Amino acid sequence: MIAEIVSVGTELLMGQVVNTDAQFIAQRLAPLGFQVFYHTTVGDNVKRLTAVVHQAVERSDVVVFTGGLGPTDDDLTKETVASALGLTVELIPEEAERLRKHFETRGYAFTPNNLKQASFPKGAIILPNAFGTAPGCIMTAENKTAILLPGPPRELFPMFQNHVMPYLEQLSGNKLYSRELRIFGKGESTITYELSDIIESQTNPTVAPYVKTGEVSLRVTALCQNEEEGEQLARPMISEIISRLGDIVYSTVGESLPETCARMLTDDRQTLAVAESCTGGLITSELVAIPGCSTFLLEGCVAYSDAAKVSRLGVNQATLDTFGAVSEQCAREMAEGMRLSSGANYALATTGFAGPDGGTEENPVGTLYIALARPGETLVKRVSLFGERARIREHAALHAFDMLRRKLCLE
Amino acid sequence: MIAEIVSVGTELLMGQVVNTDAQFIAQRLAPLGFQVFYHTTVGDNVKRLTAVVHQAVERSDVVVFTGGLGPTDDDLTKETVASALGLTVELIPEEAERLRKHFETRGYAFTPNNLKQASFPKGAIILPNAFGTAPGCIMTAENKTAILLPGPPRELFPMFQNHVMPYLEQLSGNKLYSRELRIFGKGESTITYELSDIIESQTNPTVAPYVKTGEVSLRVTALCQNEEEGEQLARPMISEIISRLGDIVYSTVGESLPETCARMLTDDRQTLAVAESCTGGLITSELVAIPGCSTFLLEGCVAYSDAAKVSRLGVNQATLDTFGAVSEQCAREMAEGMRLSSGANYALATTGFAGPDGGTEENPVGTLYIALARPGETLVKRVSLFGERARIREHAALHAFDMLRRKLCLE
Repeated sequence: MIAEIVSVGTELLMGQVVNTDAQFIAQRLAPLGFQVFYHTTVGDNVKRLTAVVHQAVERSDVVVFTGGLGPTDDDLTKETVASALGLTVELIPEEAERLRKHFETRGYAFTPNNLKQASFPKGAIILPNAFGTAPGCIMTAENKTAILLPGPPRELFPMFQNHVMPYLEQLSGNKLYSRELRIFGKGESTITYELSDIIESQTNPTVAPYVKTGEVSLRVTALCQNEEEGEQLARPMISEIISRLGDIVYSTVGESLPETCARMLTDDRQTLAVAESCTGGLITSELVAIPGCSTFLLEGCVAYSDAAKVSRLGVNQATLDTFGAVSEQCAREMAEGMRLSSGANYALATTGFAGPDGGTEENPVGTLYIALARPGETLVKRVSLFGERARIREHAALHAFDMLRRKLCLE
Repeated sequence: MIAEIVSVGTELLMGQVVNTDAQFIAQRLAPLGFQVFYHTTVGDNVKRLTAVVHQAVERSDVVVFTGGLGPTDDDLTKETVASALGLTVELIPEEAERLRKHFETRGYAFTPNNLKQASFPKGAIILPNAFGTAPGCIMTAENKTAILLPGPPRELFPMFQNHVMPYLEQLSGNKLYSRELRIFGKGESTITYELSDIIESQTNPTVAPYVKTGEVSLRVTALCQNEEEGEQLARPMISEIISRLGDIVYSTVGESLPETCARMLTDDRQTLAVAESCTGGLITSELVAIPGCSTFLLEGCVAYSDAAKVSRLGVNQATLDTFGAVSEQCAREMAEGMRLSSGANYALATTGFAGPDGGTEENPVGTLYIALARPGETLVKRVSLFGERARIREHAALHAFDMLRRKLCLE
């Protein structure tokens, strides 16, 4: 079946917002077997919207519309689409009552223009909106399906996931089973090269690479009748990918590196402290972003100045004088000092030149030393990164997390 | 003049990437006076691409194309657009030579398919690509203008800014002068309400609100003949906005809150240390993201556990026992302890419940205490935030920066 996406909204045409709705919907249509040939964005203008609707309904079986479902006069999508399908909207009393209650509960005035949001063609499937006032709906006529969704992503995403996906699965006769493999340590081009025969011969399951900051994820998606069949279809491909790529695959359930470390530390009842120079709080902040981090995270220290490295972490002034702050020796003393003074089992430390200034001939901008102190040993790794300051800091944090998760794997 | 945007790429149709190119281009077309009625995305398919190109060229004066300029067989944009305009592409020897050198310098093999990137219609304006191999181009025929740009944003953005903007300014007879006012302390709806008469009656300059995480920015844009005239046109509106909104406008040159604090600290030769609990390194990390932060930032401490608050920051155990870690008293002692032990002039501290768990009846999830210690005084502010953990932490950091910049303003 052929599907397309029509986004309605002047704010999209003007570039005031980026069209994440279209991406979200497209990501979910393709794996279900829908062929998506066009995305179109058009403003809140009857004439142009009507032309776009007619063209879309003519050339596609399923058209997903976003935006223009609100209460104001320039919210035209529902009326225009209904008219193109030869349907007329009418007030649905139960919806009007629901809306009136919604306003009453919140103490808002219920103005008559809101009744627009309670009007639908007879027989349309009304999609409840858990995060806003405008419901979505599905209209069908002459073998064409129009799915109308609200524009704001926080309303659209859950509505799509909870109400549209089951409908589309039924329509296509397919169910989706999906697993995300996350990989740190090789670039996208290397990974797709090493998996090229799998990627080229894919039918079901499919595998699609996505690039994230500093890492790659592979989404393995199986068309299936139920979860059990999906799992059976996906398992051999996941095993094959892992056997080729090895331990650079750090998660098969879509966990991030900080989440993986957090889970392992919690499961092993280990504690962590972090001493950061060039990453400057980024590692600690990514751990604190995880609910429940207090079970393993004791403290973090951003020892940005040399003085702080000495006073807070017990780095020897002689080490700084002899080797400099960006050195294996300094990273080691930072991690060991942090571990001792915090009482944590593990301590991570980073020191490096994030740029744009700084660096030496031996250790140019992008050079990073990461140390991991644990009972009985301290490991230090030297990493060479390139790019802008923000990129170097983000990649540095990933390398630190990867060092930690590799060690925790062996426990 | 009527303009539209056509994005070519299967990766967009499949939702593998979000269409930031279309947003970037739209943001720049509208203020120059171009009316943008459509964005279309289509795949690398000759038949459908040809249909889309013909429709776009027919209904618009200027069509901006993105993607499909590479060396492979499914990069079809240039040939298809040229053919729709009645033009034919031919090899441009100087471009071929430039490309050959480009490959040679980098030690890459120069395969013949790369010559596709050196072919253009006679008379086309070739747009150099500083970050990739495929140049863009501008073709004109029968009063229609087609602007072809590479898909990757890091290639497109600078090419558009450096080569397309001057062309479009000339084509439209307009120049743009733009200033970004950044605002923290009121929401978008309140701000647009307070400025509604300005927004409704805007002609030149225009003012457009954009929402960022926890703050609002207003872009004031003047159509003008030159920078001086633009500045003269924009100044009265900027003054009027500031006189209405007051000191919640913290920058008129698009600086972020951390950048504003960093600049003020540097200019005043003041130093800062940061003690974080619920924000967990976020404040420090946003400062370390700014090049040159070592001139003012001495250190940061993430005292996530109570034990760390006592041992690292000198918070009294009695304070924790009596008032708890999320209290005015604890925030005050964190900031004062940090200031004393670091030797910094200023110290910022945060403590709060970021959720999803924790909180008390008196201080529910979202309650935050921020303290600022400086010579002679310590200020403490209580803030009530709502939403998810990530939102609470981000807003908490903004409140802390705002507290600091307000105090630095008075120095």
